[in-house]
Amino acid sequence: MINGNNVIAGNYVEVDGGVFNATDPSTGKQLTGDFHAADTLLIEKTLNAATAAFKVYRIISPAAKATFLRTIADKLTAIGDDLINRAVAESGLPVGRITGELGRTTGQLRLFADLVEEGSWVDAVIDTAQPERTPIPRSDIRRMFSPIGPVVVFGASNFPLAFSVAGGDTASALAAGCPVVVKAHPAHPGTSAMVAAAISAAAIETGMPAGVFSMLYDNGYNVGAQLVKHEQTKAVAFTGSYNGGMALIKLAQERKSLIPVFTEMGSINPVILLPAILNAEPETLAAKYAGSITLGAGQFCTNPGLILAIKSEGLDRFVTSLGGAIEITPSATMLTAGIWKNYEKLSGEILAEPGIELVTKSTAIDKEKVNQSVATIAKVSAEAFIANKKFGEEVFGPWSLLVVADDAAQLQQVIESLDGQLTATVMAEKEELPLYGDLLNALTEKTGRIILNGVPTGVEVCAAMQHGGPFPATSDSRFTSVGTGAVYRFVRPIAWQDWEDSLLPPELQQANPLNIWRQVNNKWTKE
Amino acid sequence: MINGNNVIAGNYVEVDGGVFNATDPSTGKQLTGDFHAADTLLIEKTLNAATAAFKVYRIISPAAKATFLRTIADKLTAIGDDLINRAVAESGLPVGRITGELGRTTGQLRLFADLVEEGSWVDAVIDTAQPERTPIPRSDIRRMFSPIGPVVVFGASNFPLAFSVAGGDTASALAAGCPVVVKAHPAHPGTSAMVAAAISAAAIETGMPAGVFSMLYDNGYNVGAQLVKHEQTKAVAFTGSYNGGMALIKLAQERKSLIPVFTEMGSINPVILLPAILNAEPETLAAKYAGSITLGAGQFCTNPGLILAIKSEGLDRFVTSLGGAIEITPSATMLTAGIWKNYEKLSGEILAEPGIELVTKSTAIDKEKVNQSVATIAKVSAEAFIANKKFGEEVFGPWSLLVVADDAAQLQQVIESLDGQLTATVMAEKEELPLYGDLLNALTEKTGRIILNGVPTGVEVCAAMQHGGPFPATSDSRFTSVGTGAVYRFVRPIAWQDWEDSLLPPELQQANPLNIWRQVNNKWTKE
Repeated sequence: MINGNNVIAGNYVEVDGGVFNATDPSTGKQLTGDFHAADTLLIEKTLNAATAAFKVYRIISPAAKATFLRTIADKLTAIGDDLINRAVAESGLPVGRITGELGRTTGQLRLFADLVEEGSWVDAVIDTAQPERTPIPRSDIRRMFSPIGPVVVFGASNFPLAFSVAGGDTASALAAGCPVVVKAHPAHPGTSAMVAAAISAAAIETGMPAGVFSMLYDNGYNVGAQLVKHEQTKAVAFTGSYNGGMALIKLAQERKSLIPVFTEMGSINPVILLPAILNAEPETLAAKYAGSITLGAGQFCTNPGLILAIKSEGLDRFVTSLGGAIEITPSATMLTAGIWKNYEKLSGEILAEPGIELVTKSTAIDKEKVNQSVATIAKVSAEAFIANKKFGEEVFGPWSLLVVADDAAQLQQVIESLDGQLTATVMAEKEELPLYGDLLNALTEKTGRIILNGVPTGVEVCAAMQHGGPFPATSDSRFTSVGTGAVYRFVRPIAWQDWEDSLLPPELQQANPLNIWRQVNNKWTKE
Repeated sequence: MINGNNVIAGNYVEVDGGVFNATDPSTGKQLTGDFHAADTLLIEKTLNAATAAFKVYRIISPAAKATFLRTIADKLTAIGDDLINRAVAESGLPVGRITGELGRTTGQLRLFADLVEEGSWVDAVIDTAQPERTPIPRSDIRRMFSPIGPVVVFGASNFPLAFSVAGGDTASALAAGCPVVVKAHPAHPGTSAMVAAAISAAAIETGMPAGVFSMLYDNGYNVGAQLVKHEQTKAVAFTGSYNGGMALIKLAQERKSLIPVFTEMGSINPVILLPAILNAEPETLAAKYAGSITLGAGQFCTNPGLILAIKSEGLDRFVTSLGGAIEITPSATMLTAGIWKNYEKLSGEILAEPGIELVTKSTAIDKEKVNQSVATIAKVSAEAFIANKKFGEEVFGPWSLLVVADDAAQLQQVIESLDGQLTATVMAEKEELPLYGDLLNALTEKTGRIILNGVPTGVEVCAAMQHGGPFPATSDSRFTSVGTGAVYRFVRPIAWQDWEDSLLPPELQQANPLNIWRQVNNKWTKE
């Protein structure tokens, strides 16, 4: 039933060898479907098709792009339960979560459709001519964002829909006007196949150039490496581990031509518990964070892996309460056997470091299933944390490390010792915030998003979202991979000087036929 | 009179050894002033000062930044003739050109002052809370651009003022809120010293944190390499040669943390002469291009180094006329002996390639001076051009290569064989443009700026300018190094979630106290 051949420009293309299968991580059992790793010839064919499609797709109308994106969303919704069930089977994530994720995925596609249809996202800037200017007349110059070329997207394991084949990277690249080549994640090839079929059908139905979308399989690293190094690839988007992201960066550095490689490599998302709130409501905080730490078996880039506080009686109560909640948190199936093994290995290694103290491990483990996450909380002193880089590593899973400072000055030192982060969170009473100005400034320097009295998990898909922080959280903190801003990873400005009005892109024509917001002679206007 | 010590956070710091001097390129004679190459200790001191300054400068008020930038401009204007004379002596460029460049430099500083004072450049995006939303309430999320950290700027040789110590890179980085460390160009250290003194004085006068500006000397590569590799450096800006730019890229790839390195590495700036205009007014076109090719001894990134046309009687007349104009073009002093030698060597090598024909070389050479540029025009067939990559290399100087195609199809092939470019120019009659849709699309894919019936030299400093094209023209085509857009190289978005209004940056506060344009719930408004 599932066609496991590579999808190239709307066609299934057969290839010899390289067959692999999907596994249900909760049982370790093989799922249906044979998937075929692509070879060099297919990669060549795929990128030729993408490059050819780019010539047409880069200047296609915003309305046509919007229709394409909405049709993808419609087709994903139409698959419905089959898609949800397969994603659940391949990821071990619960039905409720995957159902929500499908909604998020189609919502994202529609949001980008709205963005391109409205049209102002191209950031049109017009400086009109000043023929009378002395000593030199000024030319008419008009600039807007234009797509960069074929984008290679790597499916992420932890969001088999929302950060995978039709996820935010694909949606934003297609919105930008870039053909997309997806390297399917080998942990959910069946889900990927169903989504790729939906995108291909939508492309055909809406008259897109064939090479606007392709998807290649591989359960190793060869196809991904070749895609990143291919000279026809013009940008790369990846969400995953630090090691995975850095491997792609290194491959891209071997290229003849430089291209943007956006890798979101996660972070430990520090949470600062300020004293007044900590002493006022330690149990409430503990309950909130027990939930955030263990949500989705902790398999979020924004999982709160680090909790920072100054020692106090409130902190002791917080620890006791958090420990109690974690101890009875039921285990959950992790995404893959490899992720489960890494979680066990890395959490074990860190727990073996000098100076660390285990607070608690969950004892509610489902013995009927495999790859079960064991929620864990540990504790170190601020001094030990600063001295040992190992404590700052991301442990992907339901893990959080509590760092106890003697005073505010030491808390500030901990913050200044941190690497770049996707998020940072402050739990505080309103009144105590102004007392921690330096601390908040130091924290802001380290992060892409700073949250007050919330949890970092749950990343809203909206215009204001920033999901990208200083290295090593992402390869380039100047961009986001969530929200409409994600489109700017895949565009470059082009300026037209003294160009013939009727031959300009509609966005830049004098009459503003698309009725978009533009910056004309330094004023924002629709005129 | 000129203090040639390194300028660190407002102080002259002495260092042993490494003395070098400036040379007048028109005579080869040494100019006054001893300049001292920095050492590792000074580099460390400089970046520590810049990092400390960043904590203050990143959140300084827009008004304070604007005053700082304008004070720099005032102080440069106040030095006036002394600065102009020194820059002329060090660069060999004529007084008129340097006077104009000083105006451009101060104009740039004032333009960025206006930009930060007006304030909307931060691209504030506000998505307000939806507490009633189901299944999950939406948080209040507010995002704006914030500075990235200390920026290392390399002075460029060909614009000793406008792309050097207080040039566009420095102005845009300071406008962004980033401290700047300049690596002075060794060809104009005296000019650099005078400008650095002006910036330091302006920083003190306007109460900026001391480390907001420093400048280090070196007549070799060591200081630049250390600056690029230093972990406290958060971005790099460079304008120069492909080899220089790529050397910095490679150094940055050895870093532990990834940072943006914007290198503008020049291009050959193709000019397409379409048939109708070529046959209507070949002599006018020739006169226009003789001027553009030889302006400033051809030492512009946007110099038209490649002219493409279809063979015709009009083209023959164009060549005859261009040749005649070039033959009597007076020689000019090139920026340095090294640049002159490279020009002689590379133009000689290309002229020795099979299939090339010399059209003409200037015979009006000033024998009283050294390092004199010899304007040169050569000719090849489209076939030969496509077959030999050497013909596509940038020859920095008054050189242009004419490529003759048999027909429009072959002209298109030449365009598709080109590397990425800063600019592309089309000379055409209005009526013939629609006949060349595919050709114009192919050309647009290759370039950052496309010009109709003008010359690529002369880069307007304005909001709509794009000075940056696909690799190898620049390291990242998504940014510009000229115009107000240059500021976006040095900023990253930060999002505040559910943050306390009074503690938000003013740009994001509910009442919009700075009265800037913001995108609130997907609508542009000042409310």
